[in-house]
Amino acid sequence: MSQFEQVTVVKKANIYYDGKVTSRTVIFADGTKKTLGIMLPGEYEFGTDAKEIMEILAGELTVQLPGSTEWIEINGTGEFTVAANSKFKLVVKTATDYCCSYIAE
Amino acid sequence: MSQFEQVTVVKKANIYYDGKVTSRTVIFADGTKKTLGIMLPGEYEFGTDAKEIMEILAGELTVQLPGSTEWIEINGTGEFTVAANSKFKLVVKTATDYCCSYIAE
Repeated sequence: MSQFEQVTVVKKANIYYDGKVTSRTVIFADGTKKTLGIMLPGEYEFGTDAKEIMEILAGELTVQLPGSTEWIEINGTGEFTVAANSKFKLVVKTATDYCCSYIAE
Repeated sequence: MSQFEQVTVVKKANIYYDGKVTSRTVIFADGTKKTLGIMLPGEYEFGTDAKEIMEILAGELTVQLPGSTEWIEINGTGEFTVAANSKFKLVVKTATDYCCSYIAE
């Protein structure tokens, strides 16, 4: 799906890490939410409230999931899931385009 | 208007200047288009096809409009219009959140 139709988009960006990580919130007719974001090169840690499915649309990065000591490498496209109420780390090597889906459980 | 309703959002980002300028395209029911973007600190030059209305939602930057030698300063929010088929320059000082409207003439 290359575009989302009949959605609501929040105008103001979500801005983290001095703008090195930013996203826009998209709300679907069923009330579910995704963010479309960009991460520039850097090291980041994020916490989740809901479970998150992170789809990498383009970029080079490594990801450390909660409770893991391993780093997952993504070059190009990829996807990973982060449990609710947890923290994950990212080392972003090139500008990375992502779509994050928030999953109610 | 803090959000756009019943719109189409293109999933993939538009990426310029190694990701220091990025945006998402929003298409409205009447076929008109806006982009919601972020510019990180840096100096940029952009060319227009259609006439553009640039609304600055947050940020600090200066703008040089086509044919002008003057620099307009925006701190916080602001708006400027750029003619079709022209070039304008920006010096962005802090992460800047913007909404660009493309105006058919």
